[in-house]
Amino acid sequence: MSNPTGVQPQPADRAHVETHFESGEMVRDIVIGLSDGLTVPFALAAGLSGAIASSRIVVLAGLAEIAAGSIAMGLGGFLAARGDAEHYVSERLREEREVVERVRDEEEEIYEIFEQYDVPRASAAPVLEALKKNPTKWVDFMMRFELGLEEPKANRALSSALTIAGSYIAGGLIPLLPYMLVSENLLALKLSAVITLLALGIFGALKGRLIGTGWLRSAVQTVLIGGAAASVAYLLARILNGHAG
Amino acid sequence: MSNPTGVQPQPADRAHVETHFESGEMVRDIVIGLSDGLTVPFALAAGLSGAIASSRIVVLAGLAEIAAGSIAMGLGGFLAARGDAEHYVSERLREEREVVERVRDEEEEIYEIFEQYDVPRASAAPVLEALKKNPTKWVDFMMRFELGLEEPKANRALSSALTIAGSYIAGGLIPLLPYMLVSENLLALKLSAVITLLALGIFGALKGRLIGTGWLRSAVQTVLIGGAAASVAYLLARILNGHAG
Repeated sequence: MSNPTGVQPQPADRAHVETHFESGEMVRDIVIGLSDGLTVPFALAAGLSGAIASSRIVVLAGLAEIAAGSIAMGLGGFLAARGDAEHYVSERLREEREVVERVRDEEEEIYEIFEQYDVPRASAAPVLEALKKNPTKWVDFMMRFELGLEEPKANRALSSALTIAGSYIAGGLIPLLPYMLVSENLLALKLSAVITLLALGIFGALKGRLIGTGWLRSAVQTVLIGGAAASVAYLLARILNGHAG
Repeated sequence: MSNPTGVQPQPADRAHVETHFESGEMVRDIVIGLSDGLTVPFALAAGLSGAIASSRIVVLAGLAEIAAGSIAMGLGGFLAARGDAEHYVSERLREEREVVERVRDEEEEIYEIFEQYDVPRASAAPVLEALKKNPTKWVDFMMRFELGLEEPKANRALSSALTIAGSYIAGGLIPLLPYMLVSENLLALKLSAVITLLALGIFGALKGRLIGTGWLRSAVQTVLIGGAAASVAYLLARILNGHAG
């Protein structure tokens, strides 16, 4: 960012976007874990309490779901992040070979990148000359501009896995608390709905502020997703239970 | 891609990467839905069958989980894709304003982009001159090279939501089938484990081929995640049940 001169359309907003890009990955992992953690165990517990009298079974199913969901999502996140890192390294090695072994092709690729933006070969030539003086920067350039890849942070896989799994567990325990404390299932369901929808609203509002879509809209959307998932699970369980029992 | 001349390090591999980049989004949605759909309902059913004698309740909980999970993931995918599209549009509008209202700053940003790759201002100047002749291409260039954003496809949000939800339901029904057909819970659990781990293995192998990480390694990883999630859920449910009952 250079210094703004003259007209300044929303400089704060622009600064915000850059912050977002930097803290993006950790926030994204928390959002992934919390969204599903607050929604799915809540909906499952609501669904089961529409069909089963015992709050013990609801808690059991909810905890089993939290264990299964947090492990599946955490390990999934671990493998995805490690896959990204491996993909980056292998593509980088190939580019490093190619700027040595296939110089002509790589030069042609630079021209092709610029041609997409109507930059003629003559105008792109000085850039190419500059890049050829520093093969490492040339490879950096190809990684970003030809392949659209950014270098993943080190140890991202483990921190991603733990962040997603932890957020899922934290989110999932909220809707289960009432079932652990109140033995009457219908009352527990009502309490669970109140605190979970409240938690979803707060989470949605914070998420909206953070990613810049507007807190109110984000809060409403997040509450509606959780409410819809829980309602459908509840109705489905009631219908199936009526049918089977 | 230009024509390969002389040495050709893995041209097939390179072609593969480009295919991957094009079909990437739909495949990613199927992978997201199937991974969780095959894993979480399976683990939940396994967990519950370790604690509850009635396979009716296992099926009920499993179906409630599939309903909740597919809605939560599908709507989550819908909002994420729509958010990406809105983010792209709003950033593009800003860049369009800025190349008119803050020409100097935007010029400076171009120089800064190239300076990251040790390209001196004099070498970058002809590119800037070419871009200034076509403001639309200039904005395209800034979107990709300053902000790292690519234009999302139209209607991506709805197709993403349906793909994720459908894959989750398809994946989730597989582990539940034995519980629907076999009344004896332990037998159903064994059958469920066999067919689900088999399905996870096939899915993992296909995924590995598609994204190029090697089919065997991917198959083993996918089976291990599902197995780990199910084992922990099973043990947790048994321990909690023993404790409570």
